[in-house]
Amino acid sequence: MNSQAEPIRVGVLGAHGRMGTEACQAVADSADLELVARLDVGDELSSAAEAGARVLVDFTTPDVVMDNLRWCVERGVHAVVGTSGFTTSRLDEVRSWLVDRPGVGVVIAPNFAVGAVLMMEFAARAARFFESVEVVEMHHPQKIDAPSGTALRTAQLIAEARAEAGLGPVPDATKEEMAGARGTGVEGVPVHSLRARGLVAHQEVLFGATGETLTIRHDSYDRKSFMPGVLLAVRAVVSRPGLTVGLGPLLS
Amino acid sequence: MNSQAEPIRVGVLGAHGRMGTEACQAVADSADLELVARLDVGDELSSAAEAGARVLVDFTTPDVVMDNLRWCVERGVHAVVGTSGFTTSRLDEVRSWLVDRPGVGVVIAPNFAVGAVLMMEFAARAARFFESVEVVEMHHPQKIDAPSGTALRTAQLIAEARAEAGLGPVPDATKEEMAGARGTGVEGVPVHSLRARGLVAHQEVLFGATGETLTIRHDSYDRKSFMPGVLLAVRAVVSRPGLTVGLGPLLS
Amino acid sequence: MNSQAEPIRVGVLGAHGRMGTEACQAVADSADLELVARLDVGDELSSAAEAGARVLVDFTTPDVVMDNLRWCVERGVHAVVGTSGFTTSRLDEVRSWLVDRPGVGVVIAPNFAVGAVLMMEFAARAARFFESVEVVEMHHPQKIDAPSGTALRTAQLIAEARAEAGLGPVPDATKEEMAGARGTGVEGVPVHSLRARGLVAHQEVLFGATGETLTIRHDSYDRKSFMPGVLLAVRAVVSRPGLTVGLGPLLS
Amino acid sequence: MNSQAEPIRVGVLGAHGRMGTEACQAVADSADLELVARLDVGDELSSAAEAGARVLVDFTTPDVVMDNLRWCVERGVHAVVGTSGFTTSRLDEVRSWLVDRPGVGVVIAPNFAVGAVLMMEFAARAARFFESVEVVEMHHPQKIDAPSGTALRTAQLIAEARAEAGLGPVPDATKEEMAGARGTGVEGVPVHSLRARGLVAHQEVLFGATGETLTIRHDSYDRKSFMPGVLLAVRAVVSRPGLTVGLGPLLS
Repeated sequence: MNSQAEPIRVGVLGAHGRMGTEACQAVADSADLELVARLDVGDELSSAAEAGARVLVDFTTPDVVMDNLRWCVERGVHAVVGTSGFTTSRLDEVRSWLVDRPGVGVVIAPNFAVGAVLMMEFAARAARFFESVEVVEMHHPQKIDAPSGTALRTAQLIAEARAEAGLGPVPDATKEEMAGARGTGVEGVPVHSLRARGLVAHQEVLFGATGETLTIRHDSYDRKSFMPGVLLAVRAVVSRPGLTVGLGPLLS
Repeated sequence: MNSQAEPIRVGVLGAHGRMGTEACQAVADSADLELVARLDVGDELSSAAEAGARVLVDFTTPDVVMDNLRWCVERGVHAVVGTSGFTTSRLDEVRSWLVDRPGVGVVIAPNFAVGAVLMMEFAARAARFFESVEVVEMHHPQKIDAPSGTALRTAQLIAEARAEAGLGPVPDATKEEMAGARGTGVEGVPVHSLRARGLVAHQEVLFGATGETLTIRHDSYDRKSFMPGVLLAVRAVVSRPGLTVGLGPLLS
Repeated sequence: MNSQAEPIRVGVLGAHGRMGTEACQAVADSADLELVARLDVGDELSSAAEAGARVLVDFTTPDVVMDNLRWCVERGVHAVVGTSGFTTSRLDEVRSWLVDRPGVGVVIAPNFAVGAVLMMEFAARAARFFESVEVVEMHHPQKIDAPSGTALRTAQLIAEARAEAGLGPVPDATKEEMAGARGTGVEGVPVHSLRARGLVAHQEVLFGATGETLTIRHDSYDRKSFMPGVLLAVRAVVSRPGLTVGLGPLLS
Repeated sequence: MNSQAEPIRVGVLGAHGRMGTEACQAVADSADLELVARLDVGDELSSAAEAGARVLVDFTTPDVVMDNLRWCVERGVHAVVGTSGFTTSRLDEVRSWLVDRPGVGVVIAPNFAVGAVLMMEFAARAARFFESVEVVEMHHPQKIDAPSGTALRTAQLIAEARAEAGLGPVPDATKEEMAGARGTGVEGVPVHSLRARGLVAHQEVLFGATGETLTIRHDSYDRKSFMPGVLLAVRAVVSRPGLTVGLGPLLS
């Protein structure tokens, strides 16, 4: 809990969505934070500036999040982003904006649940010991993007670790494939997206070597599981300039 | 165990492959069966005829299996087929051949393990109660086809049950998909193929409805698990003319 | 949906609990049902009678449910019971009460989710094909009884099927066991209870034979998943005298 | 691969068992190791000494392993132990023997598969972030001890991490328990042992916090998966005096 006298002024973008609603509640319930703006489709970002927001929390959609972020960086407003769709090229673009704004902090996390952050950490650690790897993410059927941001990030971390360890492509003798059966390749890591009523947000990373497999699975049953991570990021971003990808670096 | 005096004469195609080797062993170890031919790439099917084979067991590859089967049907040799790659159109083609050969029996089973057969039965039974369904199959990385024959057959059974129950397409709001992330659609049922060192043959069927999911999973750890089903089919096919798809009808 | 002019008058016992609250809501939201009594600890059952309840829904606790049920049977009030703790001897006791009250219907279901009912059906069907079986149930840590009622019922169904098929005890060479490691035996079927924060209600049945396993898993993520089954039972019980165990017989 | 001219002379205890047989093969196949003794029930340990063994690999049973180990320590023979049943008190006893034999190395590993070692590392790392934890191990039905050595070691690591983080007992409101349902408590961590035909060696660690769970699972499908770890330990133990528990410290 932050003990400074002055609470951090926070705005939420996508405030009427499911994650945004929870985020508003969580901010409002925190003594060291002050909820000063709830914006959604049709609202002007300038009203957040007028309300004096030092941090904007973004739970919007992939098609508007880059414009939101650019606005934040240009105005010197810190940003905590849970919206998905951040490819390597998008992350590079955000980094390029921040070059000229050294005081601004941006945390982009594909997942704010502690268990998901550990899943990614463990996947990156295990990657170099296993010849094979597959990522499977499972979500409710209202989700718009596939794969999920968490799956993309996990696959990128695994690909980096494999490259460092000098591992080549995953073994795969498939010659006759019905298009899409083997999933989508994210930097060489196969990723599969399942959508089913009843599911919330789940992911499994499967590693394989001769005679053994190691599986790391995270299940989110409730959006409340993300809020401790969102609040942690809001408190940290004001004194953490530059781009931070994933909640991992904030989890000592 | 069949008690008739005369053993059934059996030939194995793909006899040097992993499944074929186990099948030769299993036939040779059965008192009521006689292994009369072991053929593989480069061998002539006619030698099986010369050896007097009444049943041919086929564990070859999708590119040669149809020629093998046509030969069997034309010569009046019964066939038990474990080779994968049987789409609806291939099955229809086999049926058309059998019209003129009413005495010939063909059993095409995507999977000879009892657990796999039950998995398919249960999947077909559950399908009409759930709005969502996804099939995930997992195999060793030497596998040539994706999805597996078992996954294709499972998806077809589910699709039939959904159609009968008047269920429409599975709910899926995906708008931004990296190609292949959502798997391949088999008659509207999404199927995902994982390949990893260490795995043998595994499949999971996930059903989802509001607030709940039902998962049916089969794991084959050893090819020996298929042999009881292969022998069952060999014994049954000689008195079961026409096409039988799946081991289910033989499992009372 | 029942189309009779007169709605069925329903009371709920344990109305302030989590399941009871949902049940009250579900009954109140149904045009063909009328919620006439919400009772909880400290309330008199007689008030349900005075309110004219034809059916009582019981989501109370194992220590009071038998008294409630006896009261229902004696007064000729039908009962739908979701409370857990029904051993074979308890079920026999209820049956004995019903002998003298041929018009009264009682439905005792360890689980009202359709997926759970199918899990039990499939477990009973698969049981005779597998030498080994283990039941694992997983719940939130506020749960008072272990194993869950669903797990007990599943194990009983499996034990009956094994006995019919002439299967002996499950193979188990354990000689050095730390007390409890192998779970509790329910008519010879090992059952294991896991309790963890974050979980809702989940169960897995694992069957094993040489070289293969078959796993059937049900996950309830939300109590809402139980309500269609509760309403189904309320509507059915008024014309279904005697004891019905499980929702299965009501699920055509 | 060790490049020294003189190969390390190795004996195997329990050489006729399944793990022992694989270990003999693996040692014999390694150019830098020399298999000098294969002992099993009825053989004298002294023959290993006479054969000049510098390292003994022990895959015996919990009832004889302590005598074997004591003999090794007294004779100055290094030991690599895969036999299970090592409680904290047994480990302490081995440590006490080693006090007077500072040159002797002993590696006791409940599991030699790299994936299992990572599973334990990840479990120890995750433990402090989750209120709840359960360990489930699954093995073939010939296994004599329950829980497995790997499960015991995993639970101990988790218990240590929880204690350091100041976590109290796992939340559990169970009041009515059929004996054994909640498993066995290993330093407060519930452990459950499943035994089923078809299984090889598998373990799952389930962590739970509000709204989320994290699961780490290891599957061994083949004893060959253990041999790289056994050879690693044999090569390391000759220059690693004292007791090393688990393969983790050898896995940089």
